[in-house]
Amino acid sequence: MSIGLRRVIEPAGVLPQAAWKLDADPRIAPDEVRIRVQRLNLDAASYRQLAQKHAGDGAAIRAEVLEIVGTRGKMHNPVTGSGGMLIGVVDEVGPESPLAVKPGDRVATLVSLTLTPLRITDGLAGWDGLSEQVPAEGTAILFGRSVVGVLPGDLAPELALAVYDVCGAPALTDRVVRANRAATVAVLGGAGKSGSLTLAAARRAGARTKAVVLNEAERDALREAGLADEIAIADARDPVAVSEAVGEPADVTVVCVDVPGCEHGAILATAAGGTVIFFSMATSFPAAALGAEGLAADVTMLVGNGFVPGHADFAVDLLRQVPAVRALFEARIAAD
Amino acid sequence: MSIGLRRVIEPAGVLPQAAWKLDADPRIAPDEVRIRVQRLNLDAASYRQLAQKHAGDGAAIRAEVLEIVGTRGKMHNPVTGSGGMLIGVVDEVGPESPLAVKPGDRVATLVSLTLTPLRITDGLAGWDGLSEQVPAEGTAILFGRSVVGVLPGDLAPELALAVYDVCGAPALTDRVVRANRAATVAVLGGAGKSGSLTLAAARRAGARTKAVVLNEAERDALREAGLADEIAIADARDPVAVSEAVGEPADVTVVCVDVPGCEHGAILATAAGGTVIFFSMATSFPAAALGAEGLAADVTMLVGNGFVPGHADFAVDLLRQVPAVRALFEARIAAD
Repeated sequence: MSIGLRRVIEPAGVLPQAAWKLDADPRIAPDEVRIRVQRLNLDAASYRQLAQKHAGDGAAIRAEVLEIVGTRGKMHNPVTGSGGMLIGVVDEVGPESPLAVKPGDRVATLVSLTLTPLRITDGLAGWDGLSEQVPAEGTAILFGRSVVGVLPGDLAPELALAVYDVCGAPALTDRVVRANRAATVAVLGGAGKSGSLTLAAARRAGARTKAVVLNEAERDALREAGLADEIAIADARDPVAVSEAVGEPADVTVVCVDVPGCEHGAILATAAGGTVIFFSMATSFPAAALGAEGLAADVTMLVGNGFVPGHADFAVDLLRQVPAVRALFEARIAAD
Repeated sequence: MSIGLRRVIEPAGVLPQAAWKLDADPRIAPDEVRIRVQRLNLDAASYRQLAQKHAGDGAAIRAEVLEIVGTRGKMHNPVTGSGGMLIGVVDEVGPESPLAVKPGDRVATLVSLTLTPLRITDGLAGWDGLSEQVPAEGTAILFGRSVVGVLPGDLAPELALAVYDVCGAPALTDRVVRANRAATVAVLGGAGKSGSLTLAAARRAGARTKAVVLNEAERDALREAGLADEIAIADARDPVAVSEAVGEPADVTVVCVDVPGCEHGAILATAAGGTVIFFSMATSFPAAALGAEGLAADVTMLVGNGFVPGHADFAVDLLRQVPAVRALFEARIAAD
């Protein structure tokens, strides 16, 4: 089943995610699917880097996104290494595609933009450059081996996209909590999108939940939502502050803060024999590996895999069943 | 118990591993230990980067190591983010140190050089810059919460250091194979130090072993050692080649190749529901996370934690019990 090797222009021999440049030609191979793009959802770390680099100048941010997509054939931020997702309408399905979609389906891609051949045709004219949500016209390609979700009829597309964007985190947290019969779960960045879904998943899996958030506003919003049994304020990049905020070390700690430097706080906040799940693309592999070694910390550290079978339905189901999570998402989208 | 915060000069509030600069003052606090340094063992990825940057010019490599240690107060390669280990003799033990060492003990530090305050006093005069093994005089500091191993009397110090350097890999592999009752283990870089120990550990834990090596020389050496049930030649950076070399996907795949770009091959070589353990400091967190997502690969991905309780004794025990591993290590050290 195709993993998109034919779309790799350079360097030869790597997979599309690792490629510098993809061929975004809209003509599809027999096992590919073409999507008419409607909206990109940039990865938070990627958008933040662009916004900081250009000091919030929307036109400059837009120009750089166009430059990246034009140069690389995909929206793969070369600094952060991250991408995002998109929504659109299925345009053409190759006769050999194994994906369960048909022309006209409104879908979200559940694989990263860093491996999705993408062509933008409207110059992003409908985007002011000031938000992660990017209205866009163009085409995207899905390979045979891929993941795509048809948008649920009862959710606004922006809401479904925001949920799908982080749907790996609650599904993997559920799996880890149940497999380890974890009694306590700490979530760094508990008030965010992946954080709030992760808190809801951890509680449904039977764990007591502790959230670490950045400030009073986040604490108040999360308290009102009632998703965490305990909430503390700390800078996730300050390991001692995180450790004190969590108190009794957690069986499982989930990092949902998309800024660099959260590895050591997460390790310190986790009990011996426990598990840290890193869901931030800003995670440094050497900082995690060497940090745990340096602290003589016997913790299992997981690279947060964005794919768990059934993850999209799992997250949408959580959103439907836990109104407080839905309210947090809707408030975030409205503020965006 | 001290984790060395008092040694951090900048930036404030981070742990020593994350610090840009440490205070390497040889005067110890009550819970610290001072070691008289005899030899550094640079991390393979770090040494390779330095050697490539300076095109094998030993004097220039030596000058940069001195520059790094002088500037940062530790041997923490700013490009690779990695360090290495050291051996030396315990010089002074603070009255409140919990470590089981006494003055005069010949020891290896089992925490990374990236968090070890280090002062070099001989200008590395005994080192030609052409090897990872660096004879050195100076002082190093261990914090209260640290890991240190007294060198075994029956092993040459260079041999013990080489084993300790990679001792996390066989111990974690043993744990993962047993916990998952894994039937097959693939090791990328099976002919290297961590690779050969990992193969031996996987087999002792009951798994059938497959090694992927770079060339005929490595294959022949490994075949003679008899550590792997199957051996195939492939470039670990070529995902399709790795996948074909491994054949039937493995339950556990261990990455012991210290070059960038091995994430996708390891993921492709692993069965659904299986586990990838990344032991290379050259691992890219986003490449692993996004690669698995893009491949719709339901694999558990572990950051190879350099600390597992009892890891040093475990690795030395393997070396003593499996003469072929010892022979491979001794050949590597002789060639170094």
